[in-house]
Amino acid sequence: MSKEHRVLTGITTTGDPHLGNLVGAILPAIKASEKTDTMSFLFLADYHSLIKNSDSQLRHQSSFDIAACWLACGLDPKKVIFYRQSDIPYIFELAWILSCLASKGLLNRAHAYKAAVSDNQAKKIEDIDKGINMGLFNYPILMAADILMFKADSVPVGQDQKQHIEMTRDIALKFNHHYGEILTAPEAIIDKNTGVLPGIDGRKMSKSYENTIPIFSEEGALRKLVMKIKTNSLEPGEPKEVSDSNIFDIYKAISPKDKIDEMQKLYQEGIAWGEAKKVLFEELSSFLKPFKNEYNKIIKDPSFVEKTLVDGSEKALSISEPIIKEVRQALGIKGF
Amino acid sequence: MSKEHRVLTGITTTGDPHLGNLVGAILPAIKASEKTDTMSFLFLADYHSLIKNSDSQLRHQSSFDIAACWLACGLDPKKVIFYRQSDIPYIFELAWILSCLASKGLLNRAHAYKAAVSDNQAKKIEDIDKGINMGLFNYPILMAADILMFKADSVPVGQDQKQHIEMTRDIALKFNHHYGEILTAPEAIIDKNTGVLPGIDGRKMSKSYENTIPIFSEEGALRKLVMKIKTNSLEPGEPKEVSDSNIFDIYKAISPKDKIDEMQKLYQEGIAWGEAKKVLFEELSSFLKPFKNEYNKIIKDPSFVEKTLVDGSEKALSISEPIIKEVRQALGIKGF
Repeated sequence: MSKEHRVLTGITTTGDPHLGNLVGAILPAIKASEKTDTMSFLFLADYHSLIKNSDSQLRHQSSFDIAACWLACGLDPKKVIFYRQSDIPYIFELAWILSCLASKGLLNRAHAYKAAVSDNQAKKIEDIDKGINMGLFNYPILMAADILMFKADSVPVGQDQKQHIEMTRDIALKFNHHYGEILTAPEAIIDKNTGVLPGIDGRKMSKSYENTIPIFSEEGALRKLVMKIKTNSLEPGEPKEVSDSNIFDIYKAISPKDKIDEMQKLYQEGIAWGEAKKVLFEELSSFLKPFKNEYNKIIKDPSFVEKTLVDGSEKALSISEPIIKEVRQALGIKGF
Repeated sequence: MSKEHRVLTGITTTGDPHLGNLVGAILPAIKASEKTDTMSFLFLADYHSLIKNSDSQLRHQSSFDIAACWLACGLDPKKVIFYRQSDIPYIFELAWILSCLASKGLLNRAHAYKAAVSDNQAKKIEDIDKGINMGLFNYPILMAADILMFKADSVPVGQDQKQHIEMTRDIALKFNHHYGEILTAPEAIIDKNTGVLPGIDGRKMSKSYENTIPIFSEEGALRKLVMKIKTNSLEPGEPKEVSDSNIFDIYKAISPKDKIDEMQKLYQEGIAWGEAKKVLFEELSSFLKPFKNEYNKIIKDPSFVEKTLVDGSEKALSISEPIIKEVRQALGIKGF
């Protein structure tokens, strides 16, 4: 009998989660985690945040907020192994092991590192590595350890992370070549169906564009953001194209089929932009309400979040422990 | 009251230990570890060996042999915390943390990496990183973690390792700058008195020159090696200079003051080289005998070595655990 299919997803512990994260990442990951033939791993990649952020209080608060957010959005700790990266020290031990198998040339070609070098070059800075720390350079190795530690079979990632999965495969196969068939070379799952959700200015919704709709906005703030969504200048009464409307794209991402059809009709009938925004706001408000209510309940109870993560980390430890032992044994790192 | 002074020494777990190691490193380290005002840490750097060696059986056997060697040479586990690096997973966690503080430029300048690049350049290889793995590139970070994990105050090293201690200091001070005064910036102790012991060909005794006298040679092999020691062509009866004699240098390294004086007199009186070698052999044989006897006893009892290291690792864990907790706390990596 083959082992259950293992799917692993890392969660960045920084930033204020927004609607784009919710519909593009959080809800799909939670839905995927509920498949009964799958063993799901979801973890807070809290140690990754050291690369860019030296504000410890912010790191701690963000980790908590993000954990609470995922729980509020429906993550069921009975169906998912939900843990903190920092609770599994074997991941870092494995990262060292993998670093001895990863060629430096491989890391030289990593996108994030190359982008940082390009930035320096564009600024005509002589030292191309200026301001780059070894965390950034080593990041693909830690990510490989995150994945290989649990023998994950597949890893849902965005297109930008595909290279890291290829590196992980490369390193895993090299390990297996030298030390025997122990590690699982994972497959990247790149969801091509997920359209990009536009932000209020029409560009991709992203924190760096400051165009987001935060999941947990207050009603008043939410209404203001929706009213700011960019439209074209068609007048009320003029028929409107759904294919070229930020309002429609957002509406579509959060609404059931029948409501989408109805909205489409309203567009053909020439609904005024102000009216369309009102419809969107109502829908968005009721879509977000249950998440918001749950979130507000959860953040009042940090010990619930803590206990959930401690339980999850215990499960993750019990799975990673035999794997790190197997790895050590293969390396000749064992008792006398 | 200030804490006890902590001295930490890492032991490479590869190679057949020879007389140069014994008088230049092993015995001085053991002697230093017996100081009563000092807390001594001696560890088998078994995970370092992954950088160069993918032979797991050899790795395991060498680690055992080296552990047995140090115990045979007088390491007293009651006076020294004697442990395996691989038994302390927090070291690798700390290595990740430190990598986020180490600038890539710092690592670009590490001697071992630069030497590997120079080798490629000398061979006109276009990819200067060819054949270099990330273990080699990251090695100074792991060494920093080895040291900082125990808040070591000083680290006895050879001149070639001095740069690594400087890097360790640099990283520790950066950590403290960002996160508070937690880590101890260690001092390198470079013993300038240790003369270099010549090998049988007169160059520095070193495995790479194949000129060593292994500590645990059989009598017959030992005699043969001593008889091969290079001398000049002075005849018996002609007075000989001690300042230019490999035989004398080796004799001096292992003998008490009165015997050294006596040998010096024999040189002035024109002792034949064959005779001098015989005197050296007798002295060397009785100098090595107790170590050899002890070694032969110990290697028959792997469970004694194992128990000693497990006990040591428990001590090392109990010291490193509060330190890693303190570090995590400072980083905001802590419970909710």
